[in-house]
Amino acid sequence: MDISAVNNLSFEDYFNVFGNVVEKSPFIAAALWSRRPFNSLNDMHVAIDHFIDDLTESGKVGLLRCYSELAGRDLQGGTLSRESQEEQAQAGLYTLQSWEASHITQLNTKYWEKFGFPFIICARMNDKDRILQQLSECCRNEYVVEFLRAIEEVKKICHLRVQALVLTD
Amino acid sequence: MDISAVNNLSFEDYFNVFGNVVEKSPFIAAALWSRRPFNSLNDMHVAIDHFIDDLTESGKVGLLRCYSELAGRDLQGGTLSRESQEEQAQAGLYTLQSWEASHITQLNTKYWEKFGFPFIICARMNDKDRILQQLSECCRNEYVVEFLRAIEEVKKICHLRVQALVLTD
Repeated sequence: MDISAVNNLSFEDYFNVFGNVVEKSPFIAAALWSRRPFNSLNDMHVAIDHFIDDLTESGKVGLLRCYSELAGRDLQGGTLSRESQEEQAQAGLYTLQSWEASHITQLNTKYWEKFGFPFIICARMNDKDRILQQLSECCRNEYVVEFLRAIEEVKKICHLRVQALVLTD
Repeated sequence: MDISAVNNLSFEDYFNVFGNVVEKSPFIAAALWSRRPFNSLNDMHVAIDHFIDDLTESGKVGLLRCYSELAGRDLQGGTLSRESQEEQAQAGLYTLQSWEASHITQLNTKYWEKFGFPFIICARMNDKDRILQQLSECCRNEYVVEFLRAIEEVKKICHLRVQALVLTD
């Protein structure tokens, strides 16, 4: 599907295809329906980034809390979104050693308790070792550093989801 | 569940319980997790209303587009959210005469084409005759009138969903 095909989708099809590019937040793609026609894939990325940047801090925190923890209960319980499932599988998070699983659970809890949102990292750009290392290091950061980093990771995850949909479907 | 029980929920339970009080927009409940402790049911309503009011116009339009049409494809295809299903059933939208179904489909299409979002009305406060009448009348309104009315309906639907969860679960 090239960009002109995106621009020609009905709202219903567009909503079904792009609804989860920001996790569990289809209102973002829905809002950007008004921005069509998109000139390019990059134009879609920029529109989403600006939309996220324009949210209040509270709205951004709400977005962050819609992401599932990496190797967390949603993965174990089979309730990850299709997109998260693929991303976490690719990063190797379905095949953790038991000590790795227990370590990541412990760090995820520590992270949520400190920052009030889950640790978010673009799993497609990392493997499990790098994710564990980053999670461990990020637990030591200050709130504002993590908040800004997490929003940038949301954008990276979103860009790769949009790219995969536009280039391969 | 009284308000103190709400305040004592884990984030995960709170998110599962209140995630869909604004249709397909769990980031709102997730954001308002930071507002706890809520003093009362009304305090929750006010927090949600303020959050919605603080969204940009584009964000609000995105929210509106997350609602399924009344007696539309999601109802016919069995893909309504649990909450919408109950609301549309109570309003009698599952037992339309064929002329009513075709009339509402025609008006829904006209409405979306004019305003760029679906017709939204608090189904629990209306029956199918009143809904059809309102839909027909609202098609004649100006954009700004409908936009503001739709946002107020989102709040009414949300209040009743929150109330049902807090008072009965």
